[in-house]
Amino acid sequence: MSVPRGRRPGGPDTRAAILSSARASFAASGFGGTTIRGVASSAGVDPALVHHYFGSKDDLFLAALEIPVDPRQAMLPVVAGGVEGAGERLLRVFLDIWDAESSRLPLLAIVRGVFEPSGQRLLRDGFLRMVLAPLGRELGVDEPERRMVLVASQLVGLVMLRYVLAVEPLASMPADEVVASYAPTLQRYLEGPLR
Amino acid sequence: MSVPRGRRPGGPDTRAAILSSARASFAASGFGGTTIRGVASSAGVDPALVHHYFGSKDDLFLAALEIPVDPRQAMLPVVAGGVEGAGERLLRVFLDIWDAESSRLPLLAIVRGVFEPSGQRLLRDGFLRMVLAPLGRELGVDEPERRMVLVASQLVGLVMLRYVLAVEPLASMPADEVVASYAPTLQRYLEGPLR
Repeated sequence: MSVPRGRRPGGPDTRAAILSSARASFAASGFGGTTIRGVASSAGVDPALVHHYFGSKDDLFLAALEIPVDPRQAMLPVVAGGVEGAGERLLRVFLDIWDAESSRLPLLAIVRGVFEPSGQRLLRDGFLRMVLAPLGRELGVDEPERRMVLVASQLVGLVMLRYVLAVEPLASMPADEVVASYAPTLQRYLEGPLR
Repeated sequence: MSVPRGRRPGGPDTRAAILSSARASFAASGFGGTTIRGVASSAGVDPALVHHYFGSKDDLFLAALEIPVDPRQAMLPVVAGGVEGAGERLLRVFLDIWDAESSRLPLLAIVRGVFEPSGQRLLRDGFLRMVLAPLGRELGVDEPERRMVLVASQLVGLVMLRYVLAVEPLASMPADEVVASYAPTLQRYLEGPLR
């Protein structure tokens, strides 16, 4: 059996090897410092195979995070309605994902990295760069970076108090009440005056 | 030299021994599970000596946290003006403390415990029970627990994005702009409709 030029053939092991290299590279170098070519090289495969299995670098990044939700798909209904009511729609999508144990547990594993440089890169690249920044641009808000970091700060704080510290009455609050409490905040961050 | 009934005499070592026992007890058992008597016993001193050095259990808890600010003192100007404008005053006090490196570093050490049970107890007991809950009661807001956990969620998220993840433009934003961005949020959590 010959393996041409030392490269791995396709198959489940190859897919796993690519994912493992990708995770190591994203954690060590962040999204910006990771290349498909570099991931392919350390997995011993051709770059075309990485594209074949995972698509773009964004797709590879999401696959490496191992979350059971594609946040880009999840944001579609938030964007679709325009900026009006976007705060409420964003909260509903966010709570649907976090209230389901199947997605909360892997997301909590990512959040736990918040005090380590590699985890911080994942959070900035994953949550801010791939989810919130595109949402701000697609909603067409002015000063999207400034507005989306305010949105992020409230969502991260909600995660910390509701899911990590589990402080009552927030931890057991029905999703509708959480939405009613926070939606006006997110809406003001999206389109209200900031100064 | 005789030490009556095996108890330590007063002095700097005694003070340090009491603090060390107190830290161990608060971390293991939380605020509610810690008693002055238990701390005294494990430090080998009389309970009266703990009171003599540290005052109340609240005072002992704050001393054990080793933060260079007494948050109860810091909240006085926030309470003094009543609920009107309290969101803005709370933010100014909060930023004064967090923007100063001398207080930010010990506070960050506490925040780093957010994923461990002992650290979670410190955050709930220290930040929520000793700082925010009394503030809500003294401002006379209705449903203080519900309102103060919303306030806490925004303040914790601000800490995470500005000081831990250091995401721009929030990390370098002048305090006045941070206040302008977040004060209306806190004010609504303090006195606005929640449902």
